[in-house]
Amino acid sequence: MAQIVNNKKIVLKDYVKGFPKESDMILKTSDTIELKIPEGSNGVLVKNLYLSCDPYMRGRMTKTQGSYVDSFTPGSPINGYGVAKVLDSGHSNLKKGDLVWGGVGWEEYSIVTAPETLIKIEHTDVPLSYYTGILGMPGMTAYVGFYEICAPKKGEYVYISAASGAVGQLVGQFAKLSGCYVVGSAGTKEKVDLLKNKFGFDDAFNYKEEQDLVAALKRYFPEGIDIYFENVGGKMLEAVLLNMRLKGRISVCGMISQYNLEQEEGVRNLLSVITKRLTMKGFIVSDHYHLYPKYMEMVIPLIKEGTIRYIEDVAEGLENAPAALVGLFSGKNVGKQVVAVARE
Amino acid sequence: MAQIVNNKKIVLKDYVKGFPKESDMILKTSDTIELKIPEGSNGVLVKNLYLSCDPYMRGRMTKTQGSYVDSFTPGSPINGYGVAKVLDSGHSNLKKGDLVWGGVGWEEYSIVTAPETLIKIEHTDVPLSYYTGILGMPGMTAYVGFYEICAPKKGEYVYISAASGAVGQLVGQFAKLSGCYVVGSAGTKEKVDLLKNKFGFDDAFNYKEEQDLVAALKRYFPEGIDIYFENVGGKMLEAVLLNMRLKGRISVCGMISQYNLEQEEGVRNLLSVITKRLTMKGFIVSDHYHLYPKYMEMVIPLIKEGTIRYIEDVAEGLENAPAALVGLFSGKNVGKQVVAVARE
Repeated sequence: MAQIVNNKKIVLKDYVKGFPKESDMILKTSDTIELKIPEGSNGVLVKNLYLSCDPYMRGRMTKTQGSYVDSFTPGSPINGYGVAKVLDSGHSNLKKGDLVWGGVGWEEYSIVTAPETLIKIEHTDVPLSYYTGILGMPGMTAYVGFYEICAPKKGEYVYISAASGAVGQLVGQFAKLSGCYVVGSAGTKEKVDLLKNKFGFDDAFNYKEEQDLVAALKRYFPEGIDIYFENVGGKMLEAVLLNMRLKGRISVCGMISQYNLEQEEGVRNLLSVITKRLTMKGFIVSDHYHLYPKYMEMVIPLIKEGTIRYIEDVAEGLENAPAALVGLFSGKNVGKQVVAVARE
Repeated sequence: MAQIVNNKKIVLKDYVKGFPKESDMILKTSDTIELKIPEGSNGVLVKNLYLSCDPYMRGRMTKTQGSYVDSFTPGSPINGYGVAKVLDSGHSNLKKGDLVWGGVGWEEYSIVTAPETLIKIEHTDVPLSYYTGILGMPGMTAYVGFYEICAPKKGEYVYISAASGAVGQLVGQFAKLSGCYVVGSAGTKEKVDLLKNKFGFDDAFNYKEEQDLVAALKRYFPEGIDIYFENVGGKMLEAVLLNMRLKGRISVCGMISQYNLEQEEGVRNLLSVITKRLTMKGFIVSDHYHLYPKYMEMVIPLIKEGTIRYIEDVAEGLENAPAALVGLFSGKNVGKQVVAVARE
């Protein structure tokens, strides 16, 4: 008979209104799990190592109608992207000991009933936690959102909001590799310093210190912005629209400033979309996962040779996961927010 | 010595705030003109036959900073698209008696100093006034904005606001020719009837009679909207965003609801751009005039065989031009608003 162990979980208490709080989630310690896949199941039993905290998860805390991702279920564990180790497998493509990334529960052990959604980790000579970020969904988001959506050209002016986050820090570095001029904004001096000194942005500013975002952007982009990588929305988008150049592209990746509002803010200056012939294009990374092998081929060498820098903010222990997730929405994290559940 | 004649003009009094009024323009009757191009000039002297009233002209009544078109000059005649007859020419491509369309002044006779911007009219077996509309700038706008920007596919759901206007009526008919399901909105019963009975839209509604635009669009598009041809902006765009389908396209042609406001309205629901992977693309027809011959090849037979219907609202006489232009912004015109200055 297989071993039965305790399986701690982070459970969503109820749907959330406004800013999520740690107390919207509960650490449940009473569940147990048998460390074995039932006979005949093609599921996979994994031990979770790293969990990913991502802004899109906010939307799942609300009862949504027809969104691209399901709402969480109050009373059940939160789920999201993670890195895990296979303990038992009923699926022919995965075996015990394999490392994978993909959708798992916020718990110590998960049974993944759709194991075809898990991606087997081939490169293990990089930190495993990177598969929640640069080598996982956020990395693909940066890759697709910049190269596929923006079609960057050498010499173009690129602006990135929430630029020190998991996606933004990569977009900025990709843009530099493409020969673009890159400015990012973030919400603390520490993050601004990282953008300039660690990630090699040409310039960066603290948006919280700017009274007038339109004027700030004009200062940093006297010639205007060719490409805006949108992570923020609201007033930031409004200010960017006035600073875009002719035929500019806006890659609409996220709008974190709007996720906790009862009602979205209205965005002015959309007339610029006409007068400047702008393209605003939204995307969801999961539509583009067929490009993952191509992305890995590009990014793995860049990581190994140190061309791309990558910063993570790792919270230790499942019990600290709620605070880590909530912290995203006040910008507490510096770099990609990860939760380390176990190291192996 | 050449004949000297009176040259009536419509002059902009001063920059306009809010809704333009007839009194913002003056009929000036005191000017004269010599009906001859000066020796050595490569300009062209034309007699203006038809003048085009277009919504984009509102922007030119304001002192703009770096727009895609120049502001009008207070104290000088308004200018815009028109159909004219060449009386004298210093340019080798045009000769006396030629008919042309392009940029002319709101006056009886104009000297066009950049005659390369005039397009010679080859097909004269259609009403000449059509070159202010279906065979001119608005026709090209409909063609480019629908085929180039939206890439329509058979069976897609198409929504057009301001649908009975110069551009909208054509977009709807192009969409029907492409095998799309087409619904338009307009602001009077008469216009709605035209959409359904004359232009062959599948359905149409009076937006002024709808308390809840989101619900109205849901009623007309239970499956959602694949293509939105945007002529209106503001609250209409806000409602459309919630009714778009996955991978929908918004061709941003105009936002007439916003042109007379001191400050643009904020538009909510832009999160839909992400969740539904929408593309919003603005365009200016003058970037696409190289497609004009291709468009003519398509549209001339459609007009001659009666496949495409086209409705104009013709104001008689230059003195009625201010009222005609102002009427655009209250939706007074039924179909393309033209001013007939002279018939030949």
